[in-house]
Amino acid sequence: MKSVLIKDILKSKPEGQTVTVYGWVRTKRDSKNLVFIQVNDGSCLASIQLTFDRTAPSKNADPVSIENSLKKITTGASIKAEGTLIESPAGGQAVEVTLEALTVLGECPTDAYPLQKKATSMEFLREVAYLRPRTNTFGAVFRVRNQMAFAVHSFFQERGFQYVNTPIITCSDAEGAGEMFQVTNLSLEKIAETGIKAGAKGKSPETAADLVDYGKDFFGKKASLTVSGQLEGETFATALSRIYTFGPTFRAENSNTPRHLSEFWMIEPEMAFFDLEDNMDLAEEFVKYLLNWALTKCREDLDFFNLRIQSGIIETLTHVVNSPFKRISYTEAIEELKKHEDKFEFKPFWGCDLQTEHERYLTENIFKCPVMVYNYPKEIKAFYMKLNDDKKTVKAVDVLVPGLGEIIGGSEREENYEKLLAACNERNMDMSNYQWYLDLRRFGTVPHSGFGLGFERLLRYITGMANIRDVIPYPRAPKLADF
Amino acid sequence: MKSVLIKDILKSKPEGQTVTVYGWVRTKRDSKNLVFIQVNDGSCLASIQLTFDRTAPSKNADPVSIENSLKKITTGASIKAEGTLIESPAGGQAVEVTLEALTVLGECPTDAYPLQKKATSMEFLREVAYLRPRTNTFGAVFRVRNQMAFAVHSFFQERGFQYVNTPIITCSDAEGAGEMFQVTNLSLEKIAETGIKAGAKGKSPETAADLVDYGKDFFGKKASLTVSGQLEGETFATALSRIYTFGPTFRAENSNTPRHLSEFWMIEPEMAFFDLEDNMDLAEEFVKYLLNWALTKCREDLDFFNLRIQSGIIETLTHVVNSPFKRISYTEAIEELKKHEDKFEFKPFWGCDLQTEHERYLTENIFKCPVMVYNYPKEIKAFYMKLNDDKKTVKAVDVLVPGLGEIIGGSEREENYEKLLAACNERNMDMSNYQWYLDLRRFGTVPHSGFGLGFERLLRYITGMANIRDVIPYPRAPKLADF
Repeated sequence: MKSVLIKDILKSKPEGQTVTVYGWVRTKRDSKNLVFIQVNDGSCLASIQLTFDRTAPSKNADPVSIENSLKKITTGASIKAEGTLIESPAGGQAVEVTLEALTVLGECPTDAYPLQKKATSMEFLREVAYLRPRTNTFGAVFRVRNQMAFAVHSFFQERGFQYVNTPIITCSDAEGAGEMFQVTNLSLEKIAETGIKAGAKGKSPETAADLVDYGKDFFGKKASLTVSGQLEGETFATALSRIYTFGPTFRAENSNTPRHLSEFWMIEPEMAFFDLEDNMDLAEEFVKYLLNWALTKCREDLDFFNLRIQSGIIETLTHVVNSPFKRISYTEAIEELKKHEDKFEFKPFWGCDLQTEHERYLTENIFKCPVMVYNYPKEIKAFYMKLNDDKKTVKAVDVLVPGLGEIIGGSEREENYEKLLAACNERNMDMSNYQWYLDLRRFGTVPHSGFGLGFERLLRYITGMANIRDVIPYPRAPKLADF
Repeated sequence: MKSVLIKDILKSKPEGQTVTVYGWVRTKRDSKNLVFIQVNDGSCLASIQLTFDRTAPSKNADPVSIENSLKKITTGASIKAEGTLIESPAGGQAVEVTLEALTVLGECPTDAYPLQKKATSMEFLREVAYLRPRTNTFGAVFRVRNQMAFAVHSFFQERGFQYVNTPIITCSDAEGAGEMFQVTNLSLEKIAETGIKAGAKGKSPETAADLVDYGKDFFGKKASLTVSGQLEGETFATALSRIYTFGPTFRAENSNTPRHLSEFWMIEPEMAFFDLEDNMDLAEEFVKYLLNWALTKCREDLDFFNLRIQSGIIETLTHVVNSPFKRISYTEAIEELKKHEDKFEFKPFWGCDLQTEHERYLTENIFKCPVMVYNYPKEIKAFYMKLNDDKKTVKAVDVLVPGLGEIIGGSEREENYEKLLAACNERNMDMSNYQWYLDLRRFGTVPHSGFGLGFERLLRYITGMANIRDVIPYPRAPKLADF
């Protein structure tokens, strides 16, 4: 069929050429003499306009056949249309197509089709998630999602990073980053049946665990879905120097909020021979690169978000791209925040985890620019972060941006074997499954750093969409795994 | 620290500049007067050579400090070295570094370090998978993996495709593409305990299923890991026109072979307004693009595979890039194969599924070029493939390449609602979970096509690695989920 995308037709210079348009009808306006049809194929936000003038049909047109097709056209119908590309006499578009042939590929029954012209709520569209990319809003969301994924890869490829696919299924469970989903091919019904039989024989309920034999499970032990690829990523960074992961991660937490997903995509770069300062330099460069990419390569869609979803979003993103990121220690941040104590529900004190209200106040009110806060108290950060000489703080860094708060969290990693082991012991962690991770500090250990960026969090920031469920194709959350 | 990658230092013109090298020592050769150290950072296959001439140390060097460091250097140690970049007087490398300062960042105890200079088997390296990217072979494998992932994205981005992240966790289970892993946060031990209590009260084993309440599971129903993103991909193709997925997929099959993984990455493009011929055009273009990318952008690593892993691999890949792909129907293929019946363990007949021996014979012996076989008997293909007018065959296509057999499988999809429903009914499929998929044929249905490429299968083909477990960072297979 050799179809051409509408975005490419719209960019063509009208020189009287014949074009073939494939797509779905957004609207049809049929007055006495003139018919206008807006056709969209999702390749861009804009639709292309087909015009048919009954008083002066194109000389190649077959009016009878066109009229027959027109009768079948409703919103959502798919068509193939041929005609001449001309400069548009009306405003709003540069070119349009005068109709010469029209074929309806698939009709769309008005009574059954959920996407009618009248505005539909985000909640309703979530229920018909398989159709929502056909709307302006979700077409724009998923085009931006596509662009940002490629921006991530481009950024790291340009800088000599190697993309690594860390495992999704894992038998490591001590990372402590969150609740994990179990992966199994044991039959739960069989386990219940074995239980009933054991109970009938008088076995005590305390022996229940004996009836679950993970040795017979697919992987020979209890397996889960990964919560982070960082630890495995470190094994590759200490071999290939600069790596990044970009893959799905999972949390089995019962968080039913507009900010949480049970399945989401994470980007985790990890760099050998990078200290905390190098890490901050990279994080700042990365955020600016991504937002600049969105502002330049997704401009049509961003203008839409700015107009319809969140006013001022373009200004916010532009501000971040153009601002040097302020760098302050956690201790300084707490001192600053204390000066404005009355503004907060949760009063800040040295040792407390920064709340979103604190983070936003720092970046929006105090410094009025993106802020990187570093050197956090070790008690509120993960075991693998490098201990400072003060023995109280670790080389962690969070990147805060206006309108959101934390967008990136990272650290320099503890590369000293004894110190890392001590940090694990302080936290009563069972490291028996993690000797390989500790070993990275035994065999040619190096200073190294990394950070994590939640892809959907980034997308929510760029698009201004209120609910994180609306920036991923098929959201997973408690009681939600449709399609 | 502002480290520079060794691949970039090796490309620099030696003009007497001072360079700083960060990396891991591969070998140290210490003769009476001369010391040579090969340092690798995984950014490329080549190591950089550091030289230290005891009889004529560089005037900026501190020989005592260097000697002290040298004593601590063994294979695997990590170092920071400074020196002057000079043209290499010896063969084998263009530049080398005359040592002026040397710091050991991390020692590497010879007795404990598993990667010694002597050759180690692939089986052994799989056991220390967290260290294997530090070897020449696996460094090369994972650099090629990185390049090919970016090649995939680049190919589709250049052609207006949108990258879509289809869900990993799914409650759809009728796709029939393979055995699925279950995802749950129900406690298996609790189920066993409930069973024991029920048995004690005299409940019959037949009631076991009643004790497993998926309504209480995280998603409120039974959930699994996806076996393919195609069906969800189709929902996006019928909105954005051209999309592709590239993500992990899973099979809970007990296949302990060098060709199977339980967790692997799949690439699945799906295109609206593409018929079978368009699909074949794209598949051919895609394969050639990928192999050409490998041959040009991974040349150093491919030369290594050609020399050490599989002789002739470069010739094979070059041949595929330069050959027009032969296109024949399944019926023709069977006729051709029947002429050579004596060559096969499994005798070919119309209606049989093509075996690898048949596929390879077609591409390697009969046509001596890549072959696309299309229009397969409907009985041996999936329900969603478009029925031909003969009512016996469907618009499926498999791409066969020399040295492997099938590398890609795809089809034009059935876009007619009644025909698709009939195909489901013929197969006794329960479509109650799939009304959304059928609906794509009710609401503006369009001709569309797509195909799938297993990423690890591609990598095995390009690198010549014998076992598929050696082209993915952390392989998952029956009884195998380490790290």
